[in-house]
Amino acid sequence: MVLRLDHRQPDFEARFAEFLSTKREVSADVEADVRGIIGEVRAGGDDALHALTLRFDGVDTRSLGLAISAAEIEAAWSATDPKVREALQFAHDRIASHHARQMPKDDHYVDALGVGLGSRWTAIEAVGLYVPGGTASYPSSVLMNAVPARVAGVERIVMVVPSRNGELNPVVLAAARIAGVDEIYRIGGAQAIAALAYGTRSIRPVAKIVGPGNAWVAAAKRHVFGTVGIDMIAGPSEVLVMADADNDPDWIAADLMAQAEHDAGAQSILMATDAGFADAVVAAVERQLATLSRSETARMSWRDFGAVILLPDWDAAVPLADRIAAEHLEIATADAEALAGRIRNAGAIFLGRHTPEVIGDYVGGSNHVLPTARSARFSSGLSVLDFVKRTSILRLGPEQLQALGPAAITLARAEGLDAHARSVGIRLNRQED
Amino acid sequence: MVLRLDHRQPDFEARFAEFLSTKREVSADVEADVRGIIGEVRAGGDDALHALTLRFDGVDTRSLGLAISAAEIEAAWSATDPKVREALQFAHDRIASHHARQMPKDDHYVDALGVGLGSRWTAIEAVGLYVPGGTASYPSSVLMNAVPARVAGVERIVMVVPSRNGELNPVVLAAARIAGVDEIYRIGGAQAIAALAYGTRSIRPVAKIVGPGNAWVAAAKRHVFGTVGIDMIAGPSEVLVMADADNDPDWIAADLMAQAEHDAGAQSILMATDAGFADAVVAAVERQLATLSRSETARMSWRDFGAVILLPDWDAAVPLADRIAAEHLEIATADAEALAGRIRNAGAIFLGRHTPEVIGDYVGGSNHVLPTARSARFSSGLSVLDFVKRTSILRLGPEQLQALGPAAITLARAEGLDAHARSVGIRLNRQED
Repeated sequence: MVLRLDHRQPDFEARFAEFLSTKREVSADVEADVRGIIGEVRAGGDDALHALTLRFDGVDTRSLGLAISAAEIEAAWSATDPKVREALQFAHDRIASHHARQMPKDDHYVDALGVGLGSRWTAIEAVGLYVPGGTASYPSSVLMNAVPARVAGVERIVMVVPSRNGELNPVVLAAARIAGVDEIYRIGGAQAIAALAYGTRSIRPVAKIVGPGNAWVAAAKRHVFGTVGIDMIAGPSEVLVMADADNDPDWIAADLMAQAEHDAGAQSILMATDAGFADAVVAAVERQLATLSRSETARMSWRDFGAVILLPDWDAAVPLADRIAAEHLEIATADAEALAGRIRNAGAIFLGRHTPEVIGDYVGGSNHVLPTARSARFSSGLSVLDFVKRTSILRLGPEQLQALGPAAITLARAEGLDAHARSVGIRLNRQED
Repeated sequence: MVLRLDHRQPDFEARFAEFLSTKREVSADVEADVRGIIGEVRAGGDDALHALTLRFDGVDTRSLGLAISAAEIEAAWSATDPKVREALQFAHDRIASHHARQMPKDDHYVDALGVGLGSRWTAIEAVGLYVPGGTASYPSSVLMNAVPARVAGVERIVMVVPSRNGELNPVVLAAARIAGVDEIYRIGGAQAIAALAYGTRSIRPVAKIVGPGNAWVAAAKRHVFGTVGIDMIAGPSEVLVMADADNDPDWIAADLMAQAEHDAGAQSILMATDAGFADAVVAAVERQLATLSRSETARMSWRDFGAVILLPDWDAAVPLADRIAAEHLEIATADAEALAGRIRNAGAIFLGRHTPEVIGDYVGGSNHVLPTARSARFSSGLSVLDFVKRTSILRLGPEQLQALGPAAITLARAEGLDAHARSVGIRLNRQED
């Protein structure tokens, strides 16, 4: 039985607060393992990568080579259904044109005192993209991570993907080809993260690492953070669907299950103002579960973390949605746009009855890498901004230094920093010692 | 003797690489301590805060109150030299007008297929600002952290500052008053971070925590990351000064010492193309060290981490500066602007002979919270962007779903996600089971 919360119940606030604090993932303690693996790669370079890849993936990179060759990529391209290649290209083009609009503009100006100020954006030199192996190896994620980096002007995009027992998903390589990834290596786990961060003879280091991964990969990314930049560590996916009684319960149930099939830790939440409609959705979920290929995963997710929240009206939804701060928020109500305008915290909002969240996973154009686990309260989805950085520029002449200098000296003295005061004072021909 | 590297030496690359990899801070292992303190605050709330503050700071917050009262803030204001208050206000106004230009704009548009796409920016609801106690308690840092939050539209800015043995720097409170900080609590250390992240009866939780702190504070921020957002963990400060022989060696020496006086782990690097000029700067440093109030700190920094790099020409400086990726880069050469344009990695660049880095610390208008320890390769200084987050918006009608849906279904099937395919297919009246 899925959790049901009713706003009219006297204990609603307590139950909602408890629901909010539910942990949906257990992070394995792999710290010591990961530290050891990173140490091996830093000390042993390519040799360590060969040994670790043989040990963990059963792949002999010493003979195959660490790099996936152009011929292998072409073979994967040929092995990919042309209809899938077309869909990837379609998705790529939509993602590229949407993300091009995110490119920040430099801002250089001279203020009233004649001080030159500037904000200059430059691309990160080189970026590593982690792609998981096995069932979680999603070609759409390759596009969502690589395209913003390319749009930002990153000159070198390096992909790593483990090939357990030599198996590689050809569609992942096809997506990398479309996205214009520059180098691909058949390595994974903490050893791949270490190679990207510190470099080996064969693999030059990058300045930032992005992309999803398992507990080892996440721990390795945390470990190398500082040496390189990392993206957020994503948790299990989630959707909050607000739906009024004018929806087809089957459509809404399908949306809830699309999220639930990702992972047993995924979360699907329905908010409804009509109890009968909510019941109809729950019944539709049960029917659909019977025929899903990933029904076991979806069923666990819905049973353990799913929820139906019954509300007196949509006004009541606003503060609750802000506390949930869902990764994905679908609003399938009469006045969806107005309701969306009142909600502060959400990774992405899908408006109206014809915008299932799945469109955003693939071909909407916006990014599907979004803040999970309530982090939309303080962070954003992946964008071009994650692949550029800003340098501040300041330029004073003698007159501007005369205008600004005295206040700087006053503050430096108030902070007890005499050498700071001297650095300004010496240029004003003042005695600051 | 300060380290000297000469580009013409055959072992220059090896010595430069070794110099680059020098660690400038030892992080104390306070993990277990911090975990314990955070656990106490989560379990004990205000009572734990009172007990921990009495134990670590010798302050009885049970009688004084956790919050610093309006009367205390007014008293601090009166106790602050009017000249310092004016300088703070001057700095505040310059920081506020520069940061107002950083506010990102929403972008809503309809593409050629009729799909509505949007990027909507909203302020983070509530932000916590950590201010260290004792000697590292800098009023300028209060402005640099609080002003961008205020400009971003953050509704609640909460400051915490420890008052060891009851002592508080009145100028810090004066800066908080000018910046419009909403609440101030006399707590510090890991216990203050825990209170901000999880809340207590007296202190409502925030969504993000910023500001510098010691090893306990840094470890606590890492620990609560995920529950709340955090800013970067700053390392010791650094400056790279490029100076030609037309500079006054005393001016350049003063700039190097302004950085060195911060911390024994701070780093001051001079790049010069003229050996005689470099010698003159080194001699000027020795002279200035004799009269500095913080000469012991500055001397250790210069001896342990300072460097003079002699180059054949400024072309040679560009790739080296990009590898150093300095927090602060001063360019005091003939064609400073052109040289700056060729450098990719720097937190902030100060152009010309009349722009000492110290101006940027206080009154330039740009932010002084900048990426340290080579992280300017992949990250930026603090800005309004750190206090807002972006929500993606997507809106399709039935026609747009017809146009995008088939490609989404194709990709969902290629990824083995049948419920994804169904969520789209069911709306296209297609059989997707």
